[in-house]
Amino acid sequence: GLWLPLITPFLEGALDEASTRRLVAHYLEEPVDGLILAATTGEGLTLEKAEVERLVAVSAETIAEKGRDLPLYLGLSGSDTRKLVKALARTADWPIVGYLIACPYYSRPSQAGLFQHFTALAEGSSKPIMIYNIPYRTGVNLENETLLRLAEHPNIVGLKDCCADASQSFELLRDRPEGFAVLTGEDALYYSALVQGADGGILASGHVMTADFAGIRTRLLQGDQPAALRAWQQLSPIPRLLFSEPSPAAAKHWLWRSGLIASPEVR
Amino acid sequence: GLWLPLITPFLEGALDEASTRRLVAHYLEEPVDGLILAATTGEGLTLEKAEVERLVAVSAETIAEKGRDLPLYLGLSGSDTRKLVKALARTADWPIVGYLIACPYYSRPSQAGLFQHFTALAEGSSKPIMIYNIPYRTGVNLENETLLRLAEHPNIVGLKDCCADASQSFELLRDRPEGFAVLTGEDALYYSALVQGADGGILASGHVMTADFAGIRTRLLQGDQPAALRAWQQLSPIPRLLFSEPSPAAAKHWLWRSGLIASPEVR
Amino acid sequence: GLWLPLITPFLEGALDEASTRRLVAHYLEEPVDGLILAATTGEGLTLEKAEVERLVAVSAETIAEKGRDLPLYLGLSGSDTRKLVKALARTADWPIVGYLIACPYYSRPSQAGLFQHFTALAEGSSKPIMIYNIPYRTGVNLENETLLRLAEHPNIVGLKDCCADASQSFELLRDRPEGFAVLTGEDALYYSALVQGADGGILASGHVMTADFAGIRTRLLQGDQPAALRAWQQLSPIPRLLFSEPSPAAAKHWLWRSGLIASPEVR
Amino acid sequence: GLWLPLITPFLEGALDEASTRRLVAHYLEEPVDGLILAATTGEGLTLEKAEVERLVAVSAETIAEKGRDLPLYLGLSGSDTRKLVKALARTADWPIVGYLIACPYYSRPSQAGLFQHFTALAEGSSKPIMIYNIPYRTGVNLENETLLRLAEHPNIVGLKDCCADASQSFELLRDRPEGFAVLTGEDALYYSALVQGADGGILASGHVMTADFAGIRTRLLQGDQPAALRAWQQLSPIPRLLFSEPSPAAAKHWLWRSGLIASPEVR
Repeated sequence: GLWLPLITPFLEGALDEASTRRLVAHYLEEPVDGLILAATTGEGLTLEKAEVERLVAVSAETIAEKGRDLPLYLGLSGSDTRKLVKALARTADWPIVGYLIACPYYSRPSQAGLFQHFTALAEGSSKPIMIYNIPYRTGVNLENETLLRLAEHPNIVGLKDCCADASQSFELLRDRPEGFAVLTGEDALYYSALVQGADGGILASGHVMTADFAGIRTRLLQGDQPAALRAWQQLSPIPRLLFSEPSPAAAKHWLWRSGLIASPEVR
Repeated sequence: GLWLPLITPFLEGALDEASTRRLVAHYLEEPVDGLILAATTGEGLTLEKAEVERLVAVSAETIAEKGRDLPLYLGLSGSDTRKLVKALARTADWPIVGYLIACPYYSRPSQAGLFQHFTALAEGSSKPIMIYNIPYRTGVNLENETLLRLAEHPNIVGLKDCCADASQSFELLRDRPEGFAVLTGEDALYYSALVQGADGGILASGHVMTADFAGIRTRLLQGDQPAALRAWQQLSPIPRLLFSEPSPAAAKHWLWRSGLIASPEVR
Repeated sequence: GLWLPLITPFLEGALDEASTRRLVAHYLEEPVDGLILAATTGEGLTLEKAEVERLVAVSAETIAEKGRDLPLYLGLSGSDTRKLVKALARTADWPIVGYLIACPYYSRPSQAGLFQHFTALAEGSSKPIMIYNIPYRTGVNLENETLLRLAEHPNIVGLKDCCADASQSFELLRDRPEGFAVLTGEDALYYSALVQGADGGILASGHVMTADFAGIRTRLLQGDQPAALRAWQQLSPIPRLLFSEPSPAAAKHWLWRSGLIASPEVR
Repeated sequence: GLWLPLITPFLEGALDEASTRRLVAHYLEEPVDGLILAATTGEGLTLEKAEVERLVAVSAETIAEKGRDLPLYLGLSGSDTRKLVKALARTADWPIVGYLIACPYYSRPSQAGLFQHFTALAEGSSKPIMIYNIPYRTGVNLENETLLRLAEHPNIVGLKDCCADASQSFELLRDRPEGFAVLTGEDALYYSALVQGADGGILASGHVMTADFAGIRTRLLQGDQPAALRAWQQLSPIPRLLFSEPSPAAAKHWLWRSGLIASPEVR
């Protein structure tokens, strides 16, 4: 499905709870299958712990108030396994259904190290984990062989794929076990990923023209690949525009101009 | 459609006409839409002019004898515009319907130089030209902007695309004029190219399991993208195997073991 | 000169102060011009704040006890400008002479963002800052144009260069202002950097065969470039060995086998 | 030493013998150690056989008339071993002292294929051969292991290195046998190559400010590496300028404006 890595609204430097509520309420009316909070697009690395807790609480409240049931995932990242295990424990009772956890950044562990890292996190989590592989941000690639071993763990349920290697993505989609989800995180490759069998996308661009992004997948599910392609050819300039500045500045600007958030501030 | 860049059979160092006839006759019974002779897979750079002439003649005779009408293209390559113009003149009466002409190798001209080169060839040719863009062999990339200008020439009718840049390929398929053909030459990207709108492929791998390659496209034309994907997932290891040694050694070996050619020799 | 990005010794999961003292005392007797603590090689991302404070204190005490004056820099990294400014304030009274601060990882700011980030840090620091540019870990490159503007700030005194672009490194060395230090952090490029005018290196490999590394530079300063080259040709396999596993595992193993630290543990 | 890959002067489409004589006479007075004719910079791929023969004859005559003894190498390239062997036979009596032969372009042979190719050429040549490795033009890299085996053949005497891999170049210079020459062909890496032990360069940029290029090496031979670096820092923008357009257009323009050749024409 189409998941949104929700931007985090700020106002005068602080978390903007009113805009958060408005934003969540807005996407409840759009064809969105889930939200990821405090992840990359949500500027998670710059949030205080208390802010993340409020962000989750406010989002969950908004969904509950509307009588809806949209799944929330929490974005986590870090290079210190122990600190991440603590974060999992600290957030165990939060109103989220799972975690999106990026590969360790900067430290460039070996494949064995990545396996140990995510195994420890899977063991330490009471909720399912989706792994986020994005070598051009983290400096390390989680190879398919390692990932397929991790996929055997019941708590590791999927991958957000930004590996930037078309063969690796194709082979993972071909070789993954039944029930293991793969969603692309590369907005520009959304159509490509879908026609190669991906289950959907976690797309910053989905903040904008949400129904159009969802419609690409709908057409494919309806068996009309040529129509999906034509729609994608129309939509494809959008990701390029939104990533012409470091994300999420352009998406925030668009949301601000649309009146959905009170300020385009980024941290 | 599915075009074959036909290998050139050799026997004891010489062009093997008998194997050529057998090979052409074989592919007349397969779902092949055309043959390219003396191109990259056909080891064109190592053929004498007289050999190329015989290769074309023998292939055309075989098709005629079978009462069929399979189109033949002739592969040309070179870095000297004048020599290529002469080659076009020399071959003007040959029984071919067009040319596949690679970008100049080694000399790395500018985009303006590429435009002038192909314009001169288009002017000098009595038959349609398909351009072959393969930067990892030639050292130069024909950019979309240049290609789209060239596509306005009535004698430049299509592209064999091996540009190795997914964005460039996607944007060309999106932006090309009506009637301008794009066929991928990257065997491993055959399915990807088709679902993005390519008209087909010129595939060395098509020598092997020809019907399976053609079947990918048939399923897409029938509107069954998921079946095409499943078939491709089965077929996808074949290109990897065939390119594990410098092409066309593996394809020739397979054809030799299949009894279609008398020797696996390469030059 | 030759600076060491000191490894952080652990014993049964905890900071090993005894090994730290032994290690610092050892390098006081070697031709080392300074130490960087808690940086990349020091596994800084996995250290608790209290551990970093002890590491600095213990190192400074050891130097003082020996009546020596080796400069200590503290390694910092992070993607949140505000948290880094707080870290600078918190450590302002520590016995260090400066900071080595990596570019923000993961978030991939624009050049304007990098300029603002480091300007804020320079404003917030009471001590000089050396910037660490290592795109293959952080996902972002600090371009020369941006760096040269930052170099105008009196608190930004140098660069640890791991940009992996030979032209960028050469041009920086050519164009940098008088007094702005450039040290390579790419062990395998130590000799190359020196002959192009770099002031030295911050080398994990310098833990091993320290005098040999220092000797390369000495020979160049003495005007004997051919001898420096011959020595480097002998020494050059060492960095390759030490980085055959994710750093600093191999260096720690060597130090452990040499008896300098009590355990080869990495976090 | 400093070798020039001489441009080939044209006038109204034909080889300009008068300009060739003037050019050769000019470089006889410059600190040039040899000339390569009809190579990449000499637009060899666009020359007719008769033109190459005249180019060599005219150059040799000019040198003889001046009573000098500058060595001439002939540039050859091609992907067909047999045609190249014939070219070696055809030119065996020409007034040249050796050949510069590029790796096969376009066909991308294996390392075994490259070994067989150059071994056949070495066997077929009465004169020494220098190999030219330039993967970004030919599409194939001659690896050090293969080259070091080829270097055992008495007729293979050196390498023009444009491999674009700093490690490969460094390791070749470290590991090559006594007496095997390595000259860089990458103008921008001339200083780097020299300080790593290269014997010199074959530099298109050497057409311009020839004495300055030679002076870099002289300073290094005199033991003044810092002075060589300072001179190189001044000179380094020249190669960038000369390669801002496809070579040799800029060099020809400069020579034309200097009055050394009658026209800046390129083919």
